[in-house]
Amino acid sequence: MVVVGAGFSGLAAALALKRAGAGVRVLEARDRVGGRVLTRWLPDGTQLDLGAQWIGPTQDRVRALVTRYGLATFPSAAHGTPTVLWDGRRYAEPPAPTGAVLALLDAYAQGVDPAAPWAAARAEAWDRRTVADWLARAAPDPVTARYLGRQLAGGLLAAAPAEISMLQLLFYLRSGGGSAMLLAMAGGAQQDRLVGGPGVLADALAAALGPDTVRCGAPVHAIVQDRTGVTVRTDDEVVTAGAVVVAVAPALAGRIRYDPPLPALRDGLNQRMPMGSAVKVHAVYPEPFWRADGRSGVATCADGPVTETVDNGTPGSARGVLTAFSYGAEATALRRLSPPARREALLDALVAIVGPAAGRPDEVVEYDWSADPWTRGCFCGALTVGAWRAYGPELRRPVGRVHWAGTETATRWAGYLDGAIEAGERAAAEVLDTTDQLSLK
Amino acid sequence: MVVVGAGFSGLAAALALKRAGAGVRVLEARDRVGGRVLTRWLPDGTQLDLGAQWIGPTQDRVRALVTRYGLATFPSAAHGTPTVLWDGRRYAEPPAPTGAVLALLDAYAQGVDPAAPWAAARAEAWDRRTVADWLARAAPDPVTARYLGRQLAGGLLAAAPAEISMLQLLFYLRSGGGSAMLLAMAGGAQQDRLVGGPGVLADALAAALGPDTVRCGAPVHAIVQDRTGVTVRTDDEVVTAGAVVVAVAPALAGRIRYDPPLPALRDGLNQRMPMGSAVKVHAVYPEPFWRADGRSGVATCADGPVTETVDNGTPGSARGVLTAFSYGAEATALRRLSPPARREALLDALVAIVGPAAGRPDEVVEYDWSADPWTRGCFCGALTVGAWRAYGPELRRPVGRVHWAGTETATRWAGYLDGAIEAGERAAAEVLDTTDQLSLK
Repeated sequence: MVVVGAGFSGLAAALALKRAGAGVRVLEARDRVGGRVLTRWLPDGTQLDLGAQWIGPTQDRVRALVTRYGLATFPSAAHGTPTVLWDGRRYAEPPAPTGAVLALLDAYAQGVDPAAPWAAARAEAWDRRTVADWLARAAPDPVTARYLGRQLAGGLLAAAPAEISMLQLLFYLRSGGGSAMLLAMAGGAQQDRLVGGPGVLADALAAALGPDTVRCGAPVHAIVQDRTGVTVRTDDEVVTAGAVVVAVAPALAGRIRYDPPLPALRDGLNQRMPMGSAVKVHAVYPEPFWRADGRSGVATCADGPVTETVDNGTPGSARGVLTAFSYGAEATALRRLSPPARREALLDALVAIVGPAAGRPDEVVEYDWSADPWTRGCFCGALTVGAWRAYGPELRRPVGRVHWAGTETATRWAGYLDGAIEAGERAAAEVLDTTDQLSLK
Repeated sequence: MVVVGAGFSGLAAALALKRAGAGVRVLEARDRVGGRVLTRWLPDGTQLDLGAQWIGPTQDRVRALVTRYGLATFPSAAHGTPTVLWDGRRYAEPPAPTGAVLALLDAYAQGVDPAAPWAAARAEAWDRRTVADWLARAAPDPVTARYLGRQLAGGLLAAAPAEISMLQLLFYLRSGGGSAMLLAMAGGAQQDRLVGGPGVLADALAAALGPDTVRCGAPVHAIVQDRTGVTVRTDDEVVTAGAVVVAVAPALAGRIRYDPPLPALRDGLNQRMPMGSAVKVHAVYPEPFWRADGRSGVATCADGPVTETVDNGTPGSARGVLTAFSYGAEATALRRLSPPARREALLDALVAIVGPAAGRPDEVVEYDWSADPWTRGCFCGALTVGAWRAYGPELRRPVGRVHWAGTETATRWAGYLDGAIEAGERAAAEVLDTTDQLSLK
C-alpha cells in the first residue's frame, strides 16, 4: 500500500496497515514527518511550537499514542487572570453575556451528526447562513457578535466569521465535544503540550514503521489507477500498490493529477475546502513579566489584529513566551504589511493586552503555514458556505483504489491531531476491508 | 513570452503580445483550442453548443473579433411565450412581482466598482451574506426567493444561492451591465450565437497567431521564475521566456507547481474560487414541437432539477433542440443518480415545461465540464462567501513574472467570452508594460 503524506494521519494509516500485515510505503513532500507541526528551539532550550501544539481530555487516540511511546506532556502555562480586550478596554471576562449564545450553539450542535452534517434537520438553513450573519442577530450587541465571531470562526477554524457557515461551525463544535471543551485551556483542547514538541510523537510513529518505510522529499504529483492497481508518481519514483491512502488536506489533494480524473463531485469538494489562514507569532521576553501582574497571558480580543494570545512558556526555561494568533481577514491584512509594519502592529496589540513591556521582545519568531507549499494554511480545511450539503457526502467516499484521510475527514476532533489519527486509522480499515480483491502489497 | 491555456483569454493575450512584436508560445492541455466551448454536430447538421454559446449587446470585444474574422451569427431561437414553472404550475411570467427585487439588486450593484468590489462602502455586509439568506428576507415569499435565487446564483454563476455572497452577485450584475442585460435573450447576453459554434472564433484567433504558436496536448505542471526569466514545464517540454500569462481559472492555476511557491495570499485566492457546477443537457426532437403550442421553449423554474431551458435550434435544421440547465445543489443531486435515473429526472422536468412530447427525444447529448480535468466546472469561478474582501485584491496582481488572465479576472462581462478577451488583453498589456526589464522573448 502507498500512503501520501507523513503527517499524523498518514503515519497512523501506515501503522494500521503495517500491523495488519500489509507492506507500506509513505511518500512525504517535505524533508521531515509530522505535517502541520514544527518546533524550533532557542539556544537556551526554550521550546517554540510553531504549528499544532496541544492535546486535551477526550482526545483518546493521541493520548494513547503518547502513552504507548512513553512520551511526556506538561500542562500549558496559565498562571493568573486572563485578559479580554473589548471595545478598547481590558477585562478579566467578557463584560457582556456570551455564555447564552455559546449554549445555544452547543444545543444546535447536538442536532448535527458529525458523520453526516448534511443530513441535519436544519442543514439547509445552517449551510446558507454565515457565522457572522447569524451572530449579528443572535448576539446582544455588535461587540459581542464580533468577539464571538473571532473566538469561534477564528479561534477554532482560523477563518473569518464571514467565511464559515453555521453548519460548518456546528459540525466542528459537535466533533470536538462542545464550545467549553474546545475553547478551554485546562480541562479543554489546549490543556497539555508535549515535551520536545508534538514532532516527537510523529518521529515515534515513523520509527515504529521501521526503516525505509517513509520517504521524505518525495512530493506525489500523479496517481494512476486501473483494474490491477494504483501507480503513484513522485518526481523521480514510481510506486505501485493495491491501494493508496491520500492523507493530505483536500485543498492539496486536489493538486495531484489523477488518471482517470477524479469524479466531478470529488473534485468539486477539493475546490471548496480552503485551509484556514492564521498568523501565529511567538514574542520571546527575558521573563514572563505578565505573571508578576497576576495576568495569565491568555487573552481574547474583540478588536485589533490579534484575536488570541497564550503564555507559551516551557518548564525549565526562564524565558517568557507570548504567542499571538491572528485569523481570517486580520491575518490577511497583516500579510499585506511590510515586515516592520507587521511587527509593529503585532507588538502594539500585545502591549494593549499585557502592557508596555510587551513592546520590547528579545525575539519574534513566526512560521507562515499559508506560505508553505505543502500545507497552505492552518489549522485545517473547512468547507465553504453552502458546500456541506452538496459536497459533504464526498468527504470520505473512496474513489476506486484511492482512500481519503487527513484530519478534515475525521468525525471526532476534526482539525486536531486526534482527528488526524482517527482519519488515518479509518482509511486504513477501509483499505483492509477491500483486500479480498487486493493484494496486501 | 509564454501563455498557459488556449481558451479565449489565452488566445487574446497571445495575439496582443504578438501584435506588439513579442515572440509567443501558447501551451494548451487539451487537444484543441477554445477552452470552455465545444460544439458537436448531429449527422443532419444540427449544431449543439455544449459549452459557452452566446454573445450579446455591449460585448464589444468579442463582437469586434467576430467582425474582424468575418464570422456569422444568428439570433437565438425565441418564438412564442416563455414558461415559468412556479410551485408546480405553468405561467407565462412569474405570478409574483420579481422586478422590485431585481431593481433593488441593480441599484445596489451601482455601488460596486467591478475593478474593486472589496472597496464598496457596504462590502463587509454584502460579503458575509449569502444570496439565499438575503432573498429569504428581501423576497415577498419563499417561492419568489427560490425562483430568484435559482435564476441569479444559478443562471448567472451556475451555483447554489447558498454558495454565492451578495458581493459576488452584485459584482457580477455590475460587470455584465445589470440584471435585464444579463438575463435577457434578445437584447441581452443570450441574444446571438455563432454559425459553426463559438469554437470557430477560437480557431480564427489561433490561425491568426500563425503556425507553431499554439501547442496542444501540453498541460503545464510547473512554472519556475528567477531574476533572469521564467521556465514553464510541460510533461515533455521546457519553455523559457521573460514572462508568462496564466490564462486558466484560479481553481486550475492553483494546481500548477510554482517555484518559488506562490505567496500565501495568492494561493489563498486560488483555494477560494471554485468553478460553477452546471449540468447542460440537449434533448433533440424531430421538430421543435413546443413552437406549435405557442411556447418559446425558454423556461425558468422555481422547483425541480432543471432551472432553465432554451430552444437551442439552429437555422437550416428541422430538429428541435431543448437545452436544459441544472445548477448548484440540483446539479450535484443529478450527478449522484444513475444515468437512467438522471435521464428520467431530466426528461420529467422537460415534460413539466413543454408537455409530454418532451419525454420522447431522439437523442440526449451532454458534456460535463465539472468532470473535464482541464476545466472542472462552468460557467466560471466565483469567490466563496467572505473571500472577496480578504482575497479579491490578489485577483489580477502579478506575482513577479507571472501574470493572470482568464474571464474570472475581467471587470466587464466577467464570466463571458467578452470578459475572457478583456482579461487576456489586459494581462498582455501588463507584460508589455514591464518589457523595459524583459526581452520580448
